[in-house]
Amino acid sequence: MTLTKISEHRCFDGTQVFYSHESVECRTEMRFSVFVPPQAQSQPVPVLYYLAGLTCTEETFMIKAGAQRVAAQLGLMLVAPDTSPRKARLPGDDASWDFGLGAGFYVDATAAPWSQHYRMYSYVTRELPEVIASLGKSRADRQGIFGHSMGGHGALVCALRNPDQYRSVSAFAPIAAPMQCPWGQKAFTGYLGADHGAWSQYDASALVARQRYERPILVDQGTADKFLTEQLKPELLEAACRQSGTTLRLRHQAGYDHGYYFISTFMEDHLRHHAQHL
Amino acid sequence: MTLTKISEHRCFDGTQVFYSHESVECRTEMRFSVFVPPQAQSQPVPVLYYLAGLTCTEETFMIKAGAQRVAAQLGLMLVAPDTSPRKARLPGDDASWDFGLGAGFYVDATAAPWSQHYRMYSYVTRELPEVIASLGKSRADRQGIFGHSMGGHGALVCALRNPDQYRSVSAFAPIAAPMQCPWGQKAFTGYLGADHGAWSQYDASALVARQRYERPILVDQGTADKFLTEQLKPELLEAACRQSGTTLRLRHQAGYDHGYYFISTFMEDHLRHHAQHL
Repeated sequence: MTLTKISEHRCFDGTQVFYSHESVECRTEMRFSVFVPPQAQSQPVPVLYYLAGLTCTEETFMIKAGAQRVAAQLGLMLVAPDTSPRKARLPGDDASWDFGLGAGFYVDATAAPWSQHYRMYSYVTRELPEVIASLGKSRADRQGIFGHSMGGHGALVCALRNPDQYRSVSAFAPIAAPMQCPWGQKAFTGYLGADHGAWSQYDASALVARQRYERPILVDQGTADKFLTEQLKPELLEAACRQSGTTLRLRHQAGYDHGYYFISTFMEDHLRHHAQHL
Repeated sequence: MTLTKISEHRCFDGTQVFYSHESVECRTEMRFSVFVPPQAQSQPVPVLYYLAGLTCTEETFMIKAGAQRVAAQLGLMLVAPDTSPRKARLPGDDASWDFGLGAGFYVDATAAPWSQHYRMYSYVTRELPEVIASLGKSRADRQGIFGHSMGGHGALVCALRNPDQYRSVSAFAPIAAPMQCPWGQKAFTGYLGADHGAWSQYDASALVARQRYERPILVDQGTADKFLTEQLKPELLEAACRQSGTTLRLRHQAGYDHGYYFISTFMEDHLRHHAQHL
């Protein structure tokens, strides 16, 4: 595989790098960012994937979350993919901000025309880890995943479906039950068609209700988040975890909203949660 | 004065707020951002102004610098104005990225048509502190100032010319001698005309060469900064400080460039420098 380095920046004694490459899964160019901590100079380090929310890019997390400081202390590599293919364009892909460009929802689309390029689930869980492994600085046996909103949904789904691959998971304000909210219903209808069996493979609450997850899940949710009741519904994840006996640490953070001022506040807690399990 | 609150976000147990108001100095709407640390709930706190660089807005520092975490620990209010008037438009104000919109250079323009609105020096040193005082959460006798690039220039000039107002100063990669670099020469010609006597009032190296500054100045400069030799010229500030016996702590940070990955890395050092003197 051929990686193109778009830019590189020294950051907290480590290196912040932006790459593009021709993705096999998405059949178009994809972009991602990597923070390589200073510890990677002497030995391979654990790697933590971050999946961003609607409208974000591979840059959002790296510029807004303030994660590099703690990752440099803990010796964690951070990897953030873009939230959808960008270069291969499809009709209607920019018609709304919650579907298409910037809104891949971390599923493998099966409905036309999206199935041609929108294969974010396989991209995140299979292709991207191979690309990261090829950099030779991380441990393939020490991977964790987290994310925000749409990316919180994605992180939970990736972890629940691949318990042997990811050793830790957490989320900020995740879309906790996408089958039961407008964002998720719109995305799943568009990408997956009407087959609710397929939908349930991408619904964290549905997944965890029927299969106990053996590791603790950390979720932070702001109480002033305007999407809380209509779109995010952490109470459904909570009920599903209870049903299967899965340990969920759901923290309601008083007064915090949906943005990166919230995320950056609790970033250190999440990184330490992952480091503990990686 | 009437302040309009644009948005408010909880952040590190404090509050991140964005305001707009009709500026008397700039005779148009101006925007600024404030981080109010948790300590301000019980008593007025010191306030630290941050002046951003070319093309930035009042949001840049607050989303990219990772400063709120430490400000919340130290009990510092952070204030960041926009880098120019935006709403009152002048012919040619968007013709280039290094003059006009987003490039006010923290001077009081005397040349037409800029003199109508581009009064950033008086806005930052006089009007904005009055606005901040009106919020009732900060101590007027405990003000510090810092900034980046064009804003590093601005912070140094504000501090050097107002030693009784600002008790601390620092800069990231400042335009250290604007009279002797292309950015500064273009801006000063446009805003101030040909009068080099007026220029020298806005040149940190010229100011500090002729008048000793009694407090230590902290400057961080990346060695991989692509603007270092042509535009920034910290060696001229160093020579000027030596000439007047001013204490300059100029740190050359190996491998760091001009962006916020550099700034965020050394933000905590700067905030602690200010807290020590505030």
